[in-house]
This record gives sequence, C-alpha cells and structure tokens, in this order.
Amino acid sequence: MVLNKKLVIKVLCAVMALVGFLMLIPCTVSLIYGETVSARAFAVCAVPMIAAGYAAFRLTKAPDTNALGLRDGFFIVASAWFVLSLLGSLPFMISGTIPNVFDAFFETASGFTTTGASILPGVEDLPKGMLFWRSFTHWVGGMGILVLTIAILPALGIGGQKIMRAETTGPSMDKMTFTFNDTARSLYLIYSAMTVIEVVLLLISGMDLYDSLVYTFGTVGTGGFATKNDGLAGYAVSSQIIIAVFMMLAGINFNLYYLCLNKKAGQALKDPELKCYLGITGGSTLFIMVMLIMSGQAAGIFDSFRLAYFQVTSILTTTGYSTFNFDLWPLPVKVVLMMLMFIGGCASSTGGGMKVIRVMMAFKIAWRGVQKRIHPSALAPVKIGGRIVPQDIMRSVSEFLILYLATLLFGTVLVSLEKVSLMTAFTSVLACFSNIGPGFEAVGPAMNFGFYSGATKLFLSVLMIAGRLELFTIFLMFTPAFWSKR
Amino acid sequence: MVLNKKLVIKVLCAVMALVGFLMLIPCTVSLIYGETVSARAFAVCAVPMIAAGYAAFRLTKAPDTNALGLRDGFFIVASAWFVLSLLGSLPFMISGTIPNVFDAFFETASGFTTTGASILPGVEDLPKGMLFWRSFTHWVGGMGILVLTIAILPALGIGGQKIMRAETTGPSMDKMTFTFNDTARSLYLIYSAMTVIEVVLLLISGMDLYDSLVYTFGTVGTGGFATKNDGLAGYAVSSQIIIAVFMMLAGINFNLYYLCLNKKAGQALKDPELKCYLGITGGSTLFIMVMLIMSGQAAGIFDSFRLAYFQVTSILTTTGYSTFNFDLWPLPVKVVLMMLMFIGGCASSTGGGMKVIRVMMAFKIAWRGVQKRIHPSALAPVKIGGRIVPQDIMRSVSEFLILYLATLLFGTVLVSLEKVSLMTAFTSVLACFSNIGPGFEAVGPAMNFGFYSGATKLFLSVLMIAGRLELFTIFLMFTPAFWSKR
Repeated sequence: MVLNKKLVIKVLCAVMALVGFLMLIPCTVSLIYGETVSARAFAVCAVPMIAAGYAAFRLTKAPDTNALGLRDGFFIVASAWFVLSLLGSLPFMISGTIPNVFDAFFETASGFTTTGASILPGVEDLPKGMLFWRSFTHWVGGMGILVLTIAILPALGIGGQKIMRAETTGPSMDKMTFTFNDTARSLYLIYSAMTVIEVVLLLISGMDLYDSLVYTFGTVGTGGFATKNDGLAGYAVSSQIIIAVFMMLAGINFNLYYLCLNKKAGQALKDPELKCYLGITGGSTLFIMVMLIMSGQAAGIFDSFRLAYFQVTSILTTTGYSTFNFDLWPLPVKVVLMMLMFIGGCASSTGGGMKVIRVMMAFKIAWRGVQKRIHPSALAPVKIGGRIVPQDIMRSVSEFLILYLATLLFGTVLVSLEKVSLMTAFTSVLACFSNIGPGFEAVGPAMNFGFYSGATKLFLSVLMIAGRLELFTIFLMFTPAFWSKR
Repeated sequence: MVLNKKLVIKVLCAVMALVGFLMLIPCTVSLIYGETVSARAFAVCAVPMIAAGYAAFRLTKAPDTNALGLRDGFFIVASAWFVLSLLGSLPFMISGTIPNVFDAFFETASGFTTTGASILPGVEDLPKGMLFWRSFTHWVGGMGILVLTIAILPALGIGGQKIMRAETTGPSMDKMTFTFNDTARSLYLIYSAMTVIEVVLLLISGMDLYDSLVYTFGTVGTGGFATKNDGLAGYAVSSQIIIAVFMMLAGINFNLYYLCLNKKAGQALKDPELKCYLGITGGSTLFIMVMLIMSGQAAGIFDSFRLAYFQVTSILTTTGYSTFNFDLWPLPVKVVLMMLMFIGGCASSTGGGMKVIRVMMAFKIAWRGVQKRIHPSALAPVKIGGRIVPQDIMRSVSEFLILYLATLLFGTVLVSLEKVSLMTAFTSVLACFSNIGPGFEAVGPAMNFGFYSGATKLFLSVLMIAGRLELFTIFLMFTPAFWSKR
C-alpha cells in the first residue's frame, strides 16, 4: 500500500504535456493580436513541456494501470491541480504580465479551480493572449471538475456520484454504470455544446468573438474572470441575461443533461436537487428585488430583476461575475448573498460551495433531529425525492459540513493576521474556499486580492484547490495514515 | 398524547408563586437602601403572584404526576422560561426603571437565561434593589439550568446527561441514577457553596457586600450583568482574578464536582471534556497574550495575562464580563474570542454555547471522515476518553450543529433588516443565542442592545431562551407533530 511513484510520475507527466498542448491555443491568440512577447512566453513554455512530458511519459516504464490504488488516485488528484496551477502560471511570469510567483500561482490556481479571484488591480491593459489564457483555464478547470466529480472521485469514494446516488431521480439512474471513457465522452459533448451555444448567443447579442469566448469560458466553468475592470456592467442587458441563464445552467448537475440526451427529460425535471436549486434561485431573486426597490437601488421591476437575478445566479453557482458593485447594496441583500456563497451549485456541476444537495440533507438531518425528540423511538429515515438516504451518506454530509466550517473558521484566524477587517478576512476565505471569486469590503467585486502577503496568497490558493477537490482529497494528505507504509 | 393542560397550568402556577417568593429578596434589599418606589414595585408584584399562584396551584385538581408525558415536559420547560421572564420583568415596568415592555422582557430573559445582554445604556443611576434583582435572576437562572440539564432534559432525551453519557469518565458514572430530588439537593449544595466561597473571597479582595453578591450571581450563573458602566475595569486586580477563576469553575460540568464530593476527584480530573476545556482556555490565553504584547495593548507579561485570561474565561464560559473594551483589540484576538463564543462551556455547567464536548465530537467526526477515505472499509468508531461514542449521540451532535448554525445564519438575515453593520447583526445573534451578552461593534462590551426595535428585541429574547434550552425544546414547539392530536 505504498505510493506507486512511477505511476504517479507518469500521470503527472501526461498532465504536463496536456498543459503544453493547451498553451498552443493562447499562443495562437497572441499571434493573431500581434502580441509577440506573449506568444513567445507561451511557446517557450509549451514546447519543452510537451517534449519533456511526452518523453518522460514514454520513458517511464508502463506500470499496470490496474495497480492504481486508492492512495495513488488521491495523490494524483491532489497533486495534479497543483502541477496544473504551477505550470500554467509560467507564461504570466515569463512574459512579465504577473512577475511575482505567488501572484501568478494564485491567479492560475484561481483559474483552474474556476474560482475567479484575482490579484490584478485592473485587467484592461493586459495582453489579449494572456487574458485569453486566464479565462481558458476556467474552461479547462470546469471540464476537469466534471470528469473528476462524475468519474474519478466516486471511484475514490468521495463526493459527486456518491452524493448523487442518494438523490438519484429514479431506479434507472443506477444503470448508469459509467466507464471512464463513456462518461468523459458524453461530458465533452454536453460541455462543448453548451459552450458553442453560449458563444453564438453572445455574438448575436452584440459581443465580439473574443469577449464571447472569454465570458463563455468564465460562465460554463463557473469561473468569473472578466476582461473589463467593472465586470459586465458595460455590456448590453441581453448579454447579461444570456450569461445569467448559462451560469444557472452550468450550476445544474450534468448527469441531468445526460438523462435529457437519453430522452429522459421528464425524469431529470423531477430531480429534487434541481427543484431546490431553482427554488433557492427564485426565492433569493425575489427577496433581493424587493430590497433593491425598497432601498431605491433599482429603477423599476425589470431593472431590479436584471440586477437581482444576475447576482443570485452568479453567486449561487460560485461564478462571481457582477453587473453592479453588490458590496454597496443594503445589508440584508449582502447577508443573503453570503448565504448563497455557502450553498453553491448542484453536485456534479461546475459550481463550488457545499452543494445544494448537501445543504438539503443537512436541513433534513436537523429537522429529523427535532422531530425525533417527540417521537424518540420512531425510526425516521431521511428521504430525498421519496428515496431513503443511506446512513453512510448522511454521515458523509455531517463530516463534510464540520470540515468545511472548521476550515472557514481557522482560515479566518490565519487571514486575520493581516491588517484587514473581519469581513474582509472571512469573505476572503469563503470566496476562495467556495470557489466564488469576490467577497466583501477589501475583496469586494470592485477590489482584488493583490494586497495580501505572499504567504496568505499561497494559503488562499491551497484553499481554492481544497474546496475544488471536495475537501477530503487535500485533508487526506495531512493524515499520518495516508503516508504510513502499512 | 394531547397536552395535559391541567398539569401544565398547575406547574406554571407553581413557577409564578416561586417568582413571587424570590422577589421578596430584592424587595428587602430595596428597603435596606430606602428605595421605596422599588420596594413597592416588588411588593405589588410579589403578593398577588404568591397568592394567585398558590390558590391556583391548590384549586387545580391534582392530576396524577405519573401522567406527565414527554409532550407536557417539553411544553413546561419551554413555557416556564417565558413565564419566568415575563413575570420577572413586571417590577422593572411598574417602578418605571425600564418602562418599555420589550426592553423589560429582553432584560429579564437575558437575566434568567444567564446571557447578560442589556438594553440599558448605563446602570450606575439605577436603584440598587432593581440592579440586585437583575443580577439575582442570573443566580436563579444558573441554578435552573443545572437542574434542567442534569435532571430534566435527560429524562426528555436532550442534551446534558445524554452527552455526558458519551464522555463519562468511568463505569461508575453509570451508577449515578439520580432521582430528581437527589440531584437537586446536591446541586443546591455545590452551587451554594461556590456562591458563598466567591462572596467571601471578593469581600476579602476589598469589594463591598452588595457588589460581592451581584458579581458572584453573575459569575456562578455565567450571566454577566454588572453594576458599573465599564464592567470590572475599575475593580482591584485581585477581585478580577477571583472572578476569572470562578467563571472558569462555573463553566465546568457540575457532575464532576459531584464526583469530587464522593471522593472521586482523580476520576473527575481524567474527564476528557475538562482537559479539552482547560486546554482551550490555556491555548487561547497564550495566543491573546502574545498578540496583546506584540500590538502594545498590554504593559507586560502579567498585565497581558490578566487581560487575556479574564477575557478568555469570560467569553468561553459565556459570562460576558470584561475588564477592557475587547472590541478595540487586534483582529486576530477578536476572531479567537468569536470562536470561543461558538464553543461555550462544558456540558452540564451553567455556561452556554455549543458546549466543549459537542465541539470535541464534531472534530472527531470530521477527522474520522477524512481517515475513512483511505481506509473505507475499516470501521472507525469515534472514541472519547477511550470509550466509544454511540451512533445516536453522534447523530445528535450533527443535528445540533446544523440547527445551531442554521439559526445563526437565518437570525443574522432577520437582524440585518435593522440598519446595522454585518458584524453587529451577526454578533448580536451569536451573543444572544450562545447566552454570552456582549458582541462586537454596536453591541460591543461598551455598548448595549437598546437601539434595536421592539420586534428585534423580542426575537433576540426568544433566541436567548432557545439557546439556553439546548435548541430542540423551542424548535419542537414549531413542529406540527408536537401539536397533532394523535
């Protein structure tokens, strides 16, 4: 049960070669816009990474992939995201766009984890190729997350599928015995189709191709990197609404789209998590609309709807785009937005946070606890969508919840060692850990994370990766049991 | 299984008569200080309450006390605290000391729940009899809590004993099959002895008898009402340290004192919750000492120890006294204090919050969750003090935790409808719900809750009672199952 080092190295080499290949795309974009410095930076990184990665991949003796143990799987998942972020940050440093290593790592980790938190005070002066790469990491990260949560993590006994099994919409879901390649293929299809449709719609709404691509990457990956300093405020209302709708779609469990593809749309629509997700979206939008109208922050019903719906989907799906500096809105609105930050998207979506299904289960667990007091002897199984949730899944939810909150609290203590307000410290941790992007006050939508020290930036980057990998993967690395030879 | 109305009324009449009797004590204090208005207010309340309570108690046909169902028990516990707070607030209103009904109810509920949150901008001009009554409610409330958590709630299947069973120090604890009267008697003894010893020590340290009594009531009940506007800042350092030590003692599980009385002190000292409680106290004190010295807020090691130790015990035990306006301390100190607010005292103490044992279990649950990922098939029971924690107790802890956090979040949304900062809204809810008293910013140690609207004061009062009654009791009242006739 020791770590299969050769296999791990082989996989990480493949990751390196993959990043190299991906960099050829922003390299091309740089060339199109005549940005030779950027193009050179990408090429300087891509070529040796592809070569070395491929060589190392071939030279490492092919171990039996069946020998891939649980431990190897966890280590690969945990380290792959670090390797991705480190290698992906090289062009920023080499081109001088983001010279500092902590800054570049933070920005790239923020990209691949689809967080969208930035250390850049302004982005409008940056080379187009670099901004393209920054947003493209969202798209790659979003895809990676889908493959991870739907195909890899369940095999390791964490998150996604495991949760989904509890909230499955019907017995036929059990037949979805994915093999890795099957899953990956249908996900490519769904994710790519979503991307193409959004790009086309944004083009129709008047955006140029470059912006359409960048904002689509940020939307379907629920990332949130923008190309303007004031986010989406300057774009047409139709573009804003298209993005809001696609953020909402990206926050839905991608298994449901798979069901729709298999002509089981009716079954998908009955999914209890989906209903709850739409309910939260609708309820929060309504509440914020009322608050914005009452406080005079919106000019009318349509205006308040546009502002509220966009911000609700953006925060709930942990994307982090904004059409308005929501830090200036009334406090009850901010508190509701903060609650949405905790919740996050649906399981097996590209969204972060605790996930709607976990929040649903948590409430059911608590409610059962209250009822049990008056009927102590009665067995009251927790049901979701009419099906009983197994005990071990309920336990996982409690474990996740405690770990999530403890990390938030201890993270806040660490970040509060910087000279910031409590609100800034807490929402910095929350925004990174839940993969949202902006927080409040000094890290609000009009601000950035640039003022933090290198150590804090590194800590927040680790939090992004831990949050993205459903916590357990990263925490596992800190247990002696993981490294013990027995 | 319908509510046994006659029995409920009979018990509540007894509560009314009891409050009447208790008021004779502050009435006497008022007469000693020649405060005729106050004395008359107490007498006007006490005499009819004793008469009516006694008459109603006698006139209500004695139902079989064996007929006391689970439902009756819950209803009595939940309503008794409301009745106590409402009747107890009458002298404040009648004497004109606190004319507003919401204010008076808030102040009295804060007293009986040993919260210590106040709506009074200043207390130094108030009649001595009234201030005595205010603090005396802490003492009564503290005793009530001990009887409730050690004798009554376990019989109803909630909290105290039930948690304790998991953290019991040895098999002999199982033999502690209390009858109600036995428990109550030993508790009277321990609680009263603690009270007398503290009063004597405070007298020796130079406090007058009146202040010694008032601060002892606030200490052993972990309440926190003071007689000076700047809390304990003006008293001798020796008095401050005596109070700090007794706050720490009041936050310890009173069953351990019972063990000590039975010459099992060695066993009591091995209690894992006690060790953790002392560890948290020591660790936090050290951290805050370092921060205060580094930031220049303390003049030396002893000064920083005095400030840090006092504030840590005061907040951890949810008393809420202060020797310094801790809202002015550096942010990391405030964040640590806020974490202590969540934790609270030990189970079966007079302290509030989540309780140390629950926090310990929560961490063990989360840690087991992480380890389970690498050894999925291995059964890993959660152990505390070498003994396995039963599944249903672990479930109760998760249920409690979720309910606690959900209430904090939704409570913050409600309070944020007032024109306050988020920090004020959140810590108002936390300070009331965890029965601490002061929060931060507009409800900091140098401020008060007077500026809130009547509705918010009522809501916060309900939170105090809900927090004091281990949540489930109050939440149960909102379930249809509780009121259904079947």
